[in-house]
Amino acid sequence: MKAKREALHSLFTAMREDKVDGDIIGLLLLINSIKGVYTTSSCSGRIGIIEEPALGAKPLSRWLVKVHRPIEFGEARESLRKAERGLIFLKSQPPIFHVVAEDLQKAKMLHELGLASGFKYTTFKVISNRYLVEINATEYLTVPLGRDGEILVSEDYLRFAIDVGNSMLKRSKGRLSRLEENFRRLREELGEDELFHEMVEKFEIGKNWRLP
Amino acid sequence: MKAKREALHSLFTAMREDKVDGDIIGLLLLINSIKGVYTTSSCSGRIGIIEEPALGAKPLSRWLVKVHRPIEFGEARESLRKAERGLIFLKSQPPIFHVVAEDLQKAKMLHELGLASGFKYTTFKVISNRYLVEINATEYLTVPLGRDGEILVSEDYLRFAIDVGNSMLKRSKGRLSRLEENFRRLREELGEDELFHEMVEKFEIGKNWRLP
Repeated sequence: MKAKREALHSLFTAMREDKVDGDIIGLLLLINSIKGVYTTSSCSGRIGIIEEPALGAKPLSRWLVKVHRPIEFGEARESLRKAERGLIFLKSQPPIFHVVAEDLQKAKMLHELGLASGFKYTTFKVISNRYLVEINATEYLTVPLGRDGEILVSEDYLRFAIDVGNSMLKRSKGRLSRLEENFRRLREELGEDELFHEMVEKFEIGKNWRLP
Repeated sequence: MKAKREALHSLFTAMREDKVDGDIIGLLLLINSIKGVYTTSSCSGRIGIIEEPALGAKPLSRWLVKVHRPIEFGEARESLRKAERGLIFLKSQPPIFHVVAEDLQKAKMLHELGLASGFKYTTFKVISNRYLVEINATEYLTVPLGRDGEILVSEDYLRFAIDVGNSMLKRSKGRLSRLEENFRRLREELGEDELFHEMVEKFEIGKNWRLP
């Protein structure tokens, strides 16, 4: 699988450059060690404040603060000073994994696995001849906080909204261990991938990370 | 297709009981008139205020107000009086269509069609041997307003949040005409379904609605 080789190349390079969320590295390594399966972009779940110049203008939007753990009130409030133009949102988003399967049969297994692990928004897409399974949950919070640098909520309300966002994040992240267990079982069924071990060696991944 | 017969039965019964969002009836009829394709639950996009006794306790949640057009400030504010227990959210959600395809080939076409119509969150699931395509967009707003009957936002803020929610709703609903055009083209490609016309006659749909 040429595509998996490239995906592992990207993942391992990103890991070395410290660009992968630490709390899901173990899980990503595990998934990629499975035969016929690999990950593309993934996120361990995050909360932060983002500024969007216009509704839906995603490419132009800018995070004022973004963390992959519960956010503290102070850091959220501080970040608001950087707001300049457009709508300001507090966003909380669950973990999301993009997993490619080499055939429809495996894609169905991944889909079942995601749902069984509590990720109720697991779906898939067919892109050219590959099956892309998105393991996703429902805990999305999107709270407008103000516009054009002006904050329209009180500190009390901000505290409350952050509380709700943090709870949602913790709730969704809490499913990661079940997801890991289920992937471990899937590996027993589908077997380990030699390509993975070849690439792990080439990138000396074992030196800095625990192999799955 | 026994399943399609049942789906049409449900849809036409719901239409007669005035339980289907009026602004997508034409589109639903069109989709169902296509060979090898039918709809299950769908929503034309909505905005409202919902009370959730606990995070993620969806079955126990209760809409205080819910409309399929932009909401007015007054009706939103009024509805808050009914809040009793749990978290109160303002939610804005884009149109969503669940379309079943009889084979993978058609599912791929539906998937492409959804994306090409601006519904960027179109995905699909395989459930037993059927392909369920979810045509969905990204305009989701979820704003906590208070807890246990207590409202934690000012009227000014509520007005602002409703404004944002209404804009998102209008934006996503604005794509419905493009979606309809694309389904019309798909029907030319896949052909009309005799079963649809048989059921339309049986339920006398032509009497009260314009046939697609």
